[in-house]
Amino acid sequence: MSSTARRDAVFELMHTGQSSLILLFERLDGMAHFQTENWERPGGGGGTARVLTEGVVFERAGVNVSAVYGQHVPPTISHKHPATENQPFFATGISMVLHPRNPYVPAFHANFRYFEAGDEWWFGGGMDMTPCYGFEEDAVHFHTTLKLLCDNHQSLADYATFKATCDRYFYLKHRHEMRGIGGIFFDNLHPEDSDGWERAFAFVEEGIETIETAYAPIVQRRMNMAYGERERHWQLYRRGRYVEFNLVYDDGTVFGLQTDGHIEAILMSLPPLVRWEFQYQPEPGSHEAALSDFLQPRDWVA
Amino acid sequence: MSSTARRDAVFELMHTGQSSLILLFERLDGMAHFQTENWERPGGGGGTARVLTEGVVFERAGVNVSAVYGQHVPPTISHKHPATENQPFFATGISMVLHPRNPYVPAFHANFRYFEAGDEWWFGGGMDMTPCYGFEEDAVHFHTTLKLLCDNHQSLADYATFKATCDRYFYLKHRHEMRGIGGIFFDNLHPEDSDGWERAFAFVEEGIETIETAYAPIVQRRMNMAYGERERHWQLYRRGRYVEFNLVYDDGTVFGLQTDGHIEAILMSLPPLVRWEFQYQPEPGSHEAALSDFLQPRDWVA
Repeated sequence: MSSTARRDAVFELMHTGQSSLILLFERLDGMAHFQTENWERPGGGGGTARVLTEGVVFERAGVNVSAVYGQHVPPTISHKHPATENQPFFATGISMVLHPRNPYVPAFHANFRYFEAGDEWWFGGGMDMTPCYGFEEDAVHFHTTLKLLCDNHQSLADYATFKATCDRYFYLKHRHEMRGIGGIFFDNLHPEDSDGWERAFAFVEEGIETIETAYAPIVQRRMNMAYGERERHWQLYRRGRYVEFNLVYDDGTVFGLQTDGHIEAILMSLPPLVRWEFQYQPEPGSHEAALSDFLQPRDWVA
Repeated sequence: MSSTARRDAVFELMHTGQSSLILLFERLDGMAHFQTENWERPGGGGGTARVLTEGVVFERAGVNVSAVYGQHVPPTISHKHPATENQPFFATGISMVLHPRNPYVPAFHANFRYFEAGDEWWFGGGMDMTPCYGFEEDAVHFHTTLKLLCDNHQSLADYATFKATCDRYFYLKHRHEMRGIGGIFFDNLHPEDSDGWERAFAFVEEGIETIETAYAPIVQRRMNMAYGERERHWQLYRRGRYVEFNLVYDDGTVFGLQTDGHIEAILMSLPPLVRWEFQYQPEPGSHEAALSDFLQPRDWVA
C-alpha cells in the first residue's frame, strides 16, 4: 500500500468514525445536536470539529477529526522519535471528550491517531473513563470490553500492557492522583511484518467501534439517577482535575498548541463549568471521599 | 550584609507585606476573613498560604508567602541563569491573586520574589490587572501609579521597560491574546554597585506598598456597580483565560509544580468558578466585544 493510499484509508476511517459516533451521542442525548466547524491549519491541513452543547445527557460533547502536515516534525513528536527530527510529517486522528451533566455518569475520552514522519509510521490511541463517583460494575464493564478488544488482536494488542500505559499516562503528578479509572492506551504501534500496517489499522478500526459497547451502557445505566446540589458541586470540583491534566500534561493538547492547531478544537476537551476550591476535603466516609481509593490502579478484569 | 542577613530581611518584608495586605483586603471586603494554612516543602522550606473564600467583594483572594531552598536549582531557573546550574538555591516570595465577585472589578495579581543561587542573587516581581470590562480611567490610574513607583527608583526601575516585560509575559500565545491590561514586571533585578542590594530591596518594599494605591481605589469604584447574569456569564468565561495562562505559561506555577511545592498554595491562583464555551463570540458592538481592543498593549500614561 502506498503512503498516499494509507493516509487516505486512515483519514476515511476517522471521518466514518466521527459520523457514526455523532449519531450515537445524539441518540444517547435524545435532544441536542452537534454543531460543525471546519477549520484550517495555516501550516498545512485542517479538521472538522463537531460539538454538542447543553444537551440533556451531555453538558458538552466534542468529536474532532484532523489531518495536519508540515515540513518539520513538532518537538513533542521528535522528542520521542529522534529519527524523525526535522523530517516532514503527516498526522491524522480522531479525538473526543464527553462531559455528562449527571454527576453519576463518568466523563469519557478517546483518541486514535496515525503518524507518518520521514520513513516511519505508527498508530496510537486508546480510551479512558473519569467518574466522579465510583461504581465497580461500570469499571468492570469498561475494562472487560477493552480486554476483549485487545484479545481480538492478540498479536499486537496486549491489554495488560495497554492498561498499564493508560494508568501511567493519566496521572496528575502534582496531585499524586490518577485522573480516572483508566482504560487502554498505546503510543507507538508499528508491527513490522508484511501485513503489519493492515493489522494495526484493523485494530484501530475495531477500537473506534468499541467506544459504543464500552461506554454507552454505562451512560444509559446512570443518566437518570437522581442527584442534587451536593453531587453537582462535587462534579464541578472534580472537573478541575480534568482541566489541570489537559493543560499541564496532555500530549494532544500540547501538540495542538505547538503546531498552532485550531484552538477551539483543541480546547473543546475542557469542561463547560468548573470549580476550584482551596483545600477541599470531602466528608470522611462519604461517597465523595471514597473516590480517591476507587481511582487507584486496579485489576478490574477477573 | 551577609547572605543570612539578606535572606532574613527579605523574608521579614514578605511576611510584613502579607499581614498588611490581608488587613487591606479584609477591609475592602467588609465581611470575609482569611484562613491560614502553613505548609512545609519536603525538599526544604515551606510557607504560609492565606485564603479568603466567598467574600462579598472577593469570591476568592489568596496571599501566599514562601521560602524554599534546596541543593539544586530547579530547571525553570537554571534555564534562564545557566551559571546557577546544580548550585544550591534559596527563594522567597509573596504572591497574590484576587478574583472579585463583581464582573466590573478587575482581577489582580502581584508577586515579588528574591533568589539566591550559587554566588548570584536577584529580585523579581511586579503586578498586573485583568479586567472583564475595559474602563479607561482604571487602566490609566493603575499604570500612572506604577510609573510613579518606578520614577521613585529611577536608577534601577524603568517603567517603560518593566511595562513592556509585563505585556510580553502575560500573553496567551495559543489565543494570540493579552491576559489583561498588564502593569509592570521585572525578572532579574541585581544592580551591581555597592548599595545595589539595598536599593533593590527598597524598590521591592515600595512595590508591595503600592499594591494598595494601585488597586484599592479601582475596587472601591467598581464593587457596587449593578450587574446581571450576562455580566456574570462573561466573567466566568473570561476566567477561563486566566486558568489557561496559569497552567500553560505561568513561571510561578511551573516552578511550583517542578519544586513539588504545596499544590493548594500554587493553585489558589485559579478562579473559584470558570466556564469554557465552544467558539463563543460576544455580540458585535457590545461592551464584551470591546474588551479585545482594550487589551491591546497601549500607552496608558500620557
